[in-house]
This record gives sequence, C-alpha cells and structure tokens, in this order.
Amino acid sequence: MTNSATDTLSDLAKVLETRKPANGGDPETSYVARLLAKGPDAFLKKIGEEATETVMAAKDVDAAEAKQDVASMSAAKAKLVGEVADLWFHSMIALAHYELTPLDVVAELTRRIGLSGLDEKALRKVAERAKEDSQKGA
Amino acid sequence: MTNSATDTLSDLAKVLETRKPANGGDPETSYVARLLAKGPDAFLKKIGEEATETVMAAKDVDAAEAKQDVASMSAAKAKLVGEVADLWFHSMIALAHYELTPLDVVAELTRRIGLSGLDEKALRKVAERAKEDSQKGA
Amino acid sequence: MTNSATDTLSDLAKVLETRKPANGGDPETSYVARLLAKGPDAFLKKIGEEATETVMAAKDVDAAEAKQDVASMSAAKAKLVGEVADLWFHSMIALAHYELTPLDVVAELTRRIGLSGLDEKALRKVAERAKEDSQKGA
Amino acid sequence: MTNSATDTLSDLAKVLETRKPANGGDPETSYVARLLAKGPDAFLKKIGEEATETVMAAKDVDAAEAKQDVASMSAAKAKLVGEVADLWFHSMIALAHYELTPLDVVAELTRRIGLSGLDEKALRKVAERAKEDSQKGA
Repeated sequence: MTNSATDTLSDLAKVLETRKPANGGDPETSYVARLLAKGPDAFLKKIGEEATETVMAAKDVDAAEAKQDVASMSAAKAKLVGEVADLWFHSMIALAHYELTPLDVVAELTRRIGLSGLDEKALRKVAERAKEDSQKGA
Repeated sequence: MTNSATDTLSDLAKVLETRKPANGGDPETSYVARLLAKGPDAFLKKIGEEATETVMAAKDVDAAEAKQDVASMSAAKAKLVGEVADLWFHSMIALAHYELTPLDVVAELTRRIGLSGLDEKALRKVAERAKEDSQKGA
Repeated sequence: MTNSATDTLSDLAKVLETRKPANGGDPETSYVARLLAKGPDAFLKKIGEEATETVMAAKDVDAAEAKQDVASMSAAKAKLVGEVADLWFHSMIALAHYELTPLDVVAELTRRIGLSGLDEKALRKVAERAKEDSQKGA
Repeated sequence: MTNSATDTLSDLAKVLETRKPANGGDPETSYVARLLAKGPDAFLKKIGEEATETVMAAKDVDAAEAKQDVASMSAAKAKLVGEVADLWFHSMIALAHYELTPLDVVAELTRRIGLSGLDEKALRKVAERAKEDSQKGA
C-alpha cells in the first residue's frame, strides 16, 4: 500500500504535536488538544478505559462466534479493530505529551524481534520480561 | 531506517501466526503459544494489566519530572516506551487469535486520518467516537 | 458508628435496585438509571476507568510522599479513598444488573477468611487463586 | 448473619495490617506480604488486572444468558462475585499500604448516601463527580 504504517504513525505523531498547548492546540476545536490541555490524568484514564473496551469487544467476538452468527461476528471483529485503534491512538497522545512517538514504540518492538531474524530468542526476551512482571504480582 | 514500521508489524504478525496451537505453537517453549493455547481470558487479562502498567510508568515520568531528576526521567521514559510496547504487543496477540493483524489497526488509523490529508475533520471523527463513548458513561 | 458497613451496603443495593429500568429508574434524572438503561458495556467500561483512576490516585500519594508534602499527601489520600469508593460503587451497579449484591461479595470475602478464624490458611486460598491467575499470564 | 460486613471488613483490615513488612509480614509464606514487600506497582497492577477479570466475568454472564444456559449462568455469576471479591481485596491491600482501611471507603459511601436518607440528591453527588470525570475525557 502507498500509505505505509511508518507514514501513518509519523503523520499521527505530527498531528498530535500540533495539538499540544505549547504549539497552539485549541481545546475548543480539538478533542486531542482538550485532553493534552487537561494533563496526564485525563488521557491516562482513557488508556484504562480503551483497554477495557478492547477486552469487551474481544469478548463480543467470542459471543458472536459461540452463536455461529457470521454477520455479527464480522461486525464484532470490525469493532475490535476500532477499539484497538482507539487504544493505540490514546497511548500515542500520552507518548506525545512525554515527547515520545509511536516510532519509539515500533523501534522497541523491532529491537525485541532482534537483528538476527525472527527467532524464538527474540520472543523469549518479551516473555522473560512479561514473566518477571507477572511474578511481581504472584 | 531500513526496518520500517510496516516491516516490524508484519514480521510480528507472522511470528504470532506461527505461535497458534493450530500452527504447532509450543506452549512449553513459547510464551505467546502458551497465552494463545490458554485462550482469550489469558491474553485479554494481560491487556488490562499492561494498560495499567503503562499508566503507572507515565505517572513515574511525572514524578521524576517533579523532582527535576534528569537521569530518572530518562529511565522512566524508556520504561514507558517499553510498557506501551508490551501493551501493543499483547493487543497483537489478541488480534492474531481473532484472525486480525496490526496492519488492520494501522489501516483504521489511516482511514481516520483521511485521504485528503491531515485535517481537523479527521481527528474529529475520532473525537466524536470518543465523545459518544464518554457520554455512554456520563 | 451507628451506620454499619452492612447497613450502607444494603442501603446502596436497595437504591441501585430502584434505578433499574424494570423498576422505573429514570435515565433523565438518575446517573445510575442511565448506566443501567444503556446496558453492560456502559457500566463495565466504568469499572476499568475507575480502576485506572484508583491506580493514578495511589501513584499521586506516592508522589506527595516523595515530596514530603504533608498537606498534599493528606489530600491525595482522601482522593484515593474517593476513587476506591467510585470503583466499588460502579462494581455494585454491575452486581445489581446481574441480580447480585455487595453483600454477596462480602459473603465471599467472609468465606475466604474462614470460619475458624483469621489464619494464614484463609489468605492462602486467595493467594493460590491469584497465583493461578498470574501464572495464566506467565 | 452473625458475621456482619463491618466485621468482615475490619477483620480483613487487621489481617492485612499484620502482613506489612514493618509488622513482620513474611513474603515467603504470605501472598499479601509478598505484594506489600514489593511495593505499590506490584499491588496496583493487580487492581487493573482484577478489574479486567471482573469485566470479562460479567461478559461471560451475558454470554451464558444469551445461550439461555441456566447452569453456566449460575456458574458465571458465582465467578463474577469471586472476581469482584478479588478486586475489592486487592484495593484493600493498596488501602492498607497507604494507612487507609475499607471502612474509610464505606464511610465515604455512607457520606454520599447522605444523612437525610436515601434520596436522589445523594446519588446526584456521585453522578456529578462521575460526569466531571467523564467530561475530563470528552
């Protein structure tokens, strides 16, 4: 496709940049400017909310699947994509506030995949991190 | 950079595909295969957990900033990037389970930015959706 | 105190009951009736949101403590109590929708403490459950 | 019942108090002592996780209801009560860490119900607060 993921993420980062109060983002006309003007708690709360909506949308796909209802399954999948988009979008608002970009996140994901190709070792890194995290709570 | 966001997201999607039980993903050796073998609740729970960790990491950046501690602020920002990467990564595991990919999410974000360029209208679409969402809860 | 926890939780359950659409709860005048009329996704989303707000309020207590600012620590603690109250309150709205009450939750907590007194065994039950949960994600 | 909600919540608060590192809580033998010893991020993350599990358990009740499967609906409701108990229990661990108790939360809920009885005004207070919260994100 002509519009690559890199383009989309860069473009989004640029738009978010213009919505910052310091760059003249207008809370009256822009939703993002409003969140950024309100400060961290406003947009961080949205991350929790959008994560919950992602989980609910996924459960709705399961429910549609259980009913073997193809039409509602297709609608539920489209909704799930929309909720993940909302979740990523709101994480990007937070990243922008902290002078970070979605491409920093992609670079971290690239780093984890590893320079030597897509091997089990790469995912083990993620796994170990996640295991430690879950043991924190164990 | 040579490894574009599109490449990274495609590569991750391919790896996740190989981790599915139907494709021989081995829960003994792979963290992702283990989550996918356990089913939705296992990986959906992680989305809630990683969202919370993202929020905590962001609050830690704020705290480091309040202390005007440059070193700990830099470390806190790196941690935030890592947590957002975890959050996106675990959303991708869910997407894979439902036969969706990160590129579907990027396509949705691209759609929202609009074909006619990055204008206020594009973000208004996201804004309206989010406003409706928040009014649901109002 | 004259108003025991049992009284408060029972009273809340009774009020929530009157807010159900089937019992004439009016979405125009009551916030709870509005959530209940909208259905599960509306009030479940709030649980994720209030959980995130609880976590942020707790991090604010940590930040105030780090600054050794007694006044803002006291305010942050009051805010934390308010957020946990919001979290519990919105869980009770969900419970009401599913014909359950906060006293069912207390009964479950009582069961876990055990009839034989407050011993390590009782908390181990909770611990095992939680450990299993965290291993699901490990 | 003989064991009132006040008793259960007070008893839980007392047990949690003994699990604090300063009071000799042993991370080797107690799950709660382990969380408290690890510090805020460990138990706060659990609040996000348990909130997500509560939401998933609620969606499972909906799914069982859609299938008109009485047995699985009853099991799903019991699971929901267990998840809310987990959510409240982990909030209590956080409260204990910050020298707060579940009875502080109940007192806040009691305050909201109002001294003059259970009237619409009381819930409006909660509603206004929640509306402000949701507008933060609007």
